Amino acid sequence: MKKNLISTMILILTAVTALFAQNNDERIPAKGFAVYEENGHFKPYEFTRHVVGDHDIQIEILYAGICHSDLHHVFADWGEEKYPMVPGHEIAGRVVAIGKDVTRFKVGDYAGIGCMIGSCRHCDACKHDLEQYCEEGAIMTYHGIDRYNGNEYTQGGYSNTYVVTEDFAIKIPQNADMSKVAPLLCAGITSYSSIMQAGIKKGDKVGIAGFGGLGHMGVQYAVSLGAEVTVFDITEDKRGDALRMGAVRYVNVNNPEDLKGLDKTFDFILSTIPAKYEPIMYLKMLKFDGQLGIVGLPAFRNMPAITVADFVLPGARRKVFGSQIGGIKETQEMLDYSVKNSIYPEVEIIKADGKQIDEAYQNVLNGKVKFRYVIDMKTLK
Amino acid sequence: MKKNLISTMILILTAVTALFAQNNDERIPAKGFAVYEENGHFKPYEFTRHVVGDHDIQIEILYAGICHSDLHHVFADWGEEKYPMVPGHEIAGRVVAIGKDVTRFKVGDYAGIGCMIGSCRHCDACKHDLEQYCEEGAIMTYHGIDRYNGNEYTQGGYSNTYVVTEDFAIKIPQNADMSKVAPLLCAGITSYSSIMQAGIKKGDKVGIAGFGGLGHMGVQYAVSLGAEVTVFDITEDKRGDALRMGAVRYVNVNNPEDLKGLDKTFDFILSTIPAKYEPIMYLKMLKFDGQLGIVGLPAFRNMPAITVADFVLPGARRKVFGSQIGGIKETQEMLDYSVKNSIYPEVEIIKADGKQIDEAYQNVLNGKVKFRYVIDMKTLK
Repeated sequence: MKKNLISTMILILTAVTALFAQNNDERIPAKGFAVYEENGHFKPYEFTRHVVGDHDIQIEILYAGICHSDLHHVFADWGEEKYPMVPGHEIAGRVVAIGKDVTRFKVGDYAGIGCMIGSCRHCDACKHDLEQYCEEGAIMTYHGIDRYNGNEYTQGGYSNTYVVTEDFAIKIPQNADMSKVAPLLCAGITSYSSIMQAGIKKGDKVGIAGFGGLGHMGVQYAVSLGAEVTVFDITEDKRGDALRMGAVRYVNVNNPEDLKGLDKTFDFILSTIPAKYEPIMYLKMLKFDGQLGIVGLPAFRNMPAITVADFVLPGARRKVFGSQIGGIKETQEMLDYSVKNSIYPEVEIIKADGKQIDEAYQNVLNGKVKFRYVIDMKTLK
Repeated sequence: MKKNLISTMILILTAVTALFAQNNDERIPAKGFAVYEENGHFKPYEFTRHVVGDHDIQIEILYAGICHSDLHHVFADWGEEKYPMVPGHEIAGRVVAIGKDVTRFKVGDYAGIGCMIGSCRHCDACKHDLEQYCEEGAIMTYHGIDRYNGNEYTQGGYSNTYVVTEDFAIKIPQNADMSKVAPLLCAGITSYSSIMQAGIKKGDKVGIAGFGGLGHMGVQYAVSLGAEVTVFDITEDKRGDALRMGAVRYVNVNNPEDLKGLDKTFDFILSTIPAKYEPIMYLKMLKFDGQLGIVGLPAFRNMPAITVADFVLPGARRKVFGSQIGGIKETQEMLDYSVKNSIYPEVEIIKADGKQIDEAYQNVLNGKVKFRYVIDMKTLK
């Protein structure tokens, strides 16, 4: 009896201590897969997340997409990086804890995180719901410095849990196909936002250059808006997929026959190409007042350029614009639109296993993925 | 008596022969100044124009502007050229003859010619009043091949007369300041059209980069639309001129102090720069959704480029577009707007004299012109 009382008291004491510790900023343990240097090899990694603040939600990560830009960061294609690095900015999961001031989420809801988890919220860009262009800098979901949480180095979605302010979390409808939602948070919004910026409407002639993760989402959005879509890629392997997704034409740019008769025929071309290419070829395919949207970003050593002459001489008032992902408001709009219209990426689900992630990276590098790898984080041991 | 009769008969015969010859395509004698090789030295040159066709007007050239692109052609900066070449695509004059089907002009009217004198008139671009982007090729006022007039090599405005279809002639209001009108036909329309494309409105922050012939017209148009204009150039010499023309700020880009605080502040920047420069500096000065319009065209050896990374990484959905002059309809609109609002170039009038033209070219090359040389073709001997 006495023993039972002591056990009970110890249990209560432990619980109170845990609660106290939690209130006093004991960080949340997390685990996942990280690269430890720029070699593309993933190994298990344990780290911590900051505590759930009053406006934060904690998400149990169910799925994490593998974006081509993860590879660029892992291989330091865009400049120096800090390791160990846990990539992943296409995150879909379930809310497991909420701060006391959270209003949009409750425990059990589905929630997603995209490329950013914070911004200043008062600059001109933030006030226009374009947090990705925050003048003080948007905070990236991984490889970022979170200035609102003790300048911690952010670690991404190839992990079991994430803590984020509710304002940068996306509500995932309960009827969404959860295993396919994650890639919408980067590949989806990036293509959606640029297509919306271009003002695509029914009957427009749209080209999607680069038929990978972003490209195959772009095709689906453009088709859903009634555009007549042409897909450009460098392989024969994806011709059938493009037509199946609703494209009216597939152009293998390595086949001169395919390229004939395309000059001055497009209202909009979206380049999602993450490797070296010739932008001028696409510029010349635009009608007057046509637009080339650029969202794909090759490694710096392979960066294509457009000269001033390319703008003026082929003439025709063609416009080129760059676009990064989308703001939080537009990301929510994209997600709702996608689920409502059953627009999802085509995914290959892999296990949360270093060897499988390594293999997936090699396949992405070699263009062998159709169309997006998604890590099932529930399989994390 | 017999002698008088013979004289009279000879006179009649001569007149009839002349008339007959005229009807049978005796070409019209013309004279002006040409370069005979790519050395920038002008010498007198005699040549012919095609006869006045049913839809043509013949213009006595009163004034011809010296455009920076004339220098690029004279020095073959943009590729091989054919000599002798009479440059000049800023032409203001008086109608001295009209074809039988001409409806818009009568003898004595003022008329102007800009950069082009023909196009197919049935392609998509022509049907949209964008003849400069004619899919079969717009015919340039000089250094062009006129496929509608026996494939003749076109010679430009540094000459005494021009024959042109009335559809490519611009009506100059009778109250126009004739000595200043000519540069409107290229410098005016090029800056006007790009500013109109950008949709500039009252209160917009507009930058004009390159404060020469095009730039000083751009300042005046933007100011007339109520924009807050900043001028960029590489000299201190033009600071006072910019402010006098209504600019609120002058930036000497060689002065780091002048450049401070300008990032993300402009809605639109127009680059009229005809030499090497860094477009990325101007891209970064644009707000999100801001636009960089490019109309200046450096020599190929000095052609600046914008990389794909420059578009995507500074982000902010900035747009870049190129623009060439304007269509005939818009050129007429620009001329009427300019005369109505007393918007004219600031000109230095020179004589139709080889030495003076040579000197003018050297001053344009060295950026010493304020702001446009105009040759008074009435002084041609």
